[in-house]
Amino acid sequence: MTQPDISLFEAINTQRAIRHFSTEPVSDESIGTILQSAIHAPNGGNTQPWHFLVVRDREAKRRLGEWYLKAWQAAVTDDMRPMQPYRSGADLGNNMADTPVVVLVCQRTSSSPTGSSIFPAVQNLLLAARGLGLGTVLTTLHTAYESEVKAYFGIPDEFETVAMIPIGYPAQGERFGRPRRRPLDEVASYEAWGRGKDE
Amino acid sequence: MTQPDISLFEAINTQRAIRHFSTEPVSDESIGTILQSAIHAPNGGNTQPWHFLVVRDREAKRRLGEWYLKAWQAAVTDDMRPMQPYRSGADLGNNMADTPVVVLVCQRTSSSPTGSSIFPAVQNLLLAARGLGLGTVLTTLHTAYESEVKAYFGIPDEFETVAMIPIGYPAQGERFGRPRRRPLDEVASYEAWGRGKDE
Repeated sequence: MTQPDISLFEAINTQRAIRHFSTEPVSDESIGTILQSAIHAPNGGNTQPWHFLVVRDREAKRRLGEWYLKAWQAAVTDDMRPMQPYRSGADLGNNMADTPVVVLVCQRTSSSPTGSSIFPAVQNLLLAARGLGLGTVLTTLHTAYESEVKAYFGIPDEFETVAMIPIGYPAQGERFGRPRRRPLDEVASYEAWGRGKDE
Repeated sequence: MTQPDISLFEAINTQRAIRHFSTEPVSDESIGTILQSAIHAPNGGNTQPWHFLVVRDREAKRRLGEWYLKAWQAAVTDDMRPMQPYRSGADLGNNMADTPVVVLVCQRTSSSPTGSSIFPAVQNLLLAARGLGLGTVLTTLHTAYESEVKAYFGIPDEFETVAMIPIGYPAQGERFGRPRRRPLDEVASYEAWGRGKDE
């Protein structure tokens, strides 16, 4: 497997949501590398409660886009509509059929509901995609249509879907980069809640 | 910030649980790099529902180890006791006071209970530590003593703890490496549940 040697910290520092994709195909080899990375993630008791459903079929992706869009429209409020991330959300749903690959991440319903054994794998997946130059966005809105999604893909009762991840090379104008975040000292304490590093 | 240029895929492929640590100190700069990496993770609506409590105080770590050990003893069954990971779990609790740093990861209780906005940050934290040569292990057992933990550290009602992560350089005999996993083709489907890549 050829793997470019992007540094860990470059990947972590520049991995952010990409919601517009080029139509450039994504190879099976790339998807394999990404999923292999996902399954290296930690998980409770090495139960590996995950299953990855790789979707390339255009009609299946169109349906996923439709469910996503309906859930998105129900979730946003009127004052959010003019904002860029929310326009991008609508585009994401509308363009899902043209997105090269969509991965549905499933976990055993018997597994921890806290996500401690599945979202580390999701993050490995997103970072590995970034490492290959592929954009992704972590979405969960489709779970509003969980029963429809499960029926469409034949997902058995003992699994649930927890994330839907569109994957593709970033469209022109989209680029990787540092996400906007509050400074670390606002979200970290030392020894006791609210205490700064040097107090 | 000096950062070694470990490749993304080397980090992902060799990050696994380390439960025995050397007493070599872990610098504030390393903890800063690790937490900066954590807060780059995706999260719903950029709400950044996280807070990281960095614990170096010996008595605080001893208490965390005690809670961990009690929860661990309650969780394991007799047939699990002879197995290596379970002996290591006991060691982890018993040695917590000697572990250089323990990070308690907290999230807002108003945030998604699925973990979609917190465990990606946890995985960035684990990978960044790996990138600096630091071992970690993702644990959640202390949550059995959530009210005691919150009272001890003064964690406010609107936050809960979701993970406890001991951090230190691996002890002699511990090493990074590929974790044991089922093969990818057992945990991936293509287009529909249970369908192989080339079907």
